[in-house]
Amino acid sequence: MDLHHIRIVLVEPAGALNLGSIARSMKNFGLSQLWLVAPRCSVDDPDAQRMAVHAQDILTSAVVCSDLAVALADCERVAGTTARERKVSTPFQGADAVAPWLLGTTAEVAYIFGPEDRGLNNAELSVCQRHVQIPTNPAYSSLNLAQAVTLCAYELFTCQPTPTTAKAASQPANAELEGFYTHLEQTLLTIGYLQPHTASSKLQKFRRLFNRAELTTEEITLLRGVLRQLAWATSQKT
Amino acid sequence: MDLHHIRIVLVEPAGALNLGSIARSMKNFGLSQLWLVAPRCSVDDPDAQRMAVHAQDILTSAVVCSDLAVALADCERVAGTTARERKVSTPFQGADAVAPWLLGTTAEVAYIFGPEDRGLNNAELSVCQRHVQIPTNPAYSSLNLAQAVTLCAYELFTCQPTPTTAKAASQPANAELEGFYTHLEQTLLTIGYLQPHTASSKLQKFRRLFNRAELTTEEITLLRGVLRQLAWATSQKT
Repeated sequence: MDLHHIRIVLVEPAGALNLGSIARSMKNFGLSQLWLVAPRCSVDDPDAQRMAVHAQDILTSAVVCSDLAVALADCERVAGTTARERKVSTPFQGADAVAPWLLGTTAEVAYIFGPEDRGLNNAELSVCQRHVQIPTNPAYSSLNLAQAVTLCAYELFTCQPTPTTAKAASQPANAELEGFYTHLEQTLLTIGYLQPHTASSKLQKFRRLFNRAELTTEEITLLRGVLRQLAWATSQKT
Repeated sequence: MDLHHIRIVLVEPAGALNLGSIARSMKNFGLSQLWLVAPRCSVDDPDAQRMAVHAQDILTSAVVCSDLAVALADCERVAGTTARERKVSTPFQGADAVAPWLLGTTAEVAYIFGPEDRGLNNAELSVCQRHVQIPTNPAYSSLNLAQAVTLCAYELFTCQPTPTTAKAASQPANAELEGFYTHLEQTLLTIGYLQPHTASSKLQKFRRLFNRAELTTEEITLLRGVLRQLAWATSQKT
């Protein structure tokens, strides 16, 4: 199975040993694209090189960028991992359940992992359509970053993909989806439904709903049409 | 399920970083018994202690012995892992397939892993009733020892029937959902987005989207709040 359209995105990784271990596991399980967002360690670190063993090519070809949005811009599907329970009601799924979803398209998709010390924060999780939580012992639930990536990679590799009978509706790129959310936020501020200081947290509820629905490009156009009409309707009354 | 009757047996481990990583993963997945056969590194090594993080107790209570037979003497079932194809007739199984077998008894059982540089040899594999091979990319099949133990521990842990902790979000009655659709239709007519003669067919697209999202009662309240605010905003401008 071809897993080359799946990118592993590490947000602010700090451990060079982890970087190397992750590169090795990625190669063990047929993954090749490593993206590093604002990394706090280098792929050239001797620890990273040593742990990678025969996967140094993955470190060499890693893409470094400063912002998560850049790493996800052209991705059709995004899954994020978290260790802790969050006040987001997007239900958590196991890595085994998310694997077929990520493999259900040939477009670029991303699997995001947070920094060793804090994991993904709510803003980072809010750009993900799927939230992955690996079940662990409640007495010690915090997985090492490299182990978490390894388990997710293993589930991707061992996933038996069901033939894609899914809808052929066109899936939006992440930037398109974010464009809709920005438009929605502006509109809700304009009509006074949102207040600037609480907008962000309230908007999370809408993100959750629409992320779950997996909007098509046509539906984004539909919804933005409503927002435009709304702007027109309110301006007419002035 | 209790996993304390399952011992992880490492034959001649050489890497202190691996020892520490393994202790951490074991604790993450509810395992507690670590056995080391003729180890070439020490549980007291600072690298091991550092990588174990909050699982140093597993390193402290590790049992060291000089011979594999001693580590297995009281074990009812033994599974051994290997990366390479061997001239042994016991068929290879995945870690997922072996987990229920190891969990099928309350007697002591062992999961054996070979040294980093050579894996288990034929003599060591011959004492195992089950041979585990984790499927990997043929282009680079050699898993790091800590990753191999982590994957096997994960399969043991997730093999347990977990109580469903899925969200108990309230599902709306159909009338509630229809009430929302009616409200939405009226609003879209009011702002001039829908025209009376085409409203019904256009509304189908919104129904499809929101039905797919499986709206909760709370989300219906949220969306109707937006519709009410919208009515207020447009009326204010009159």
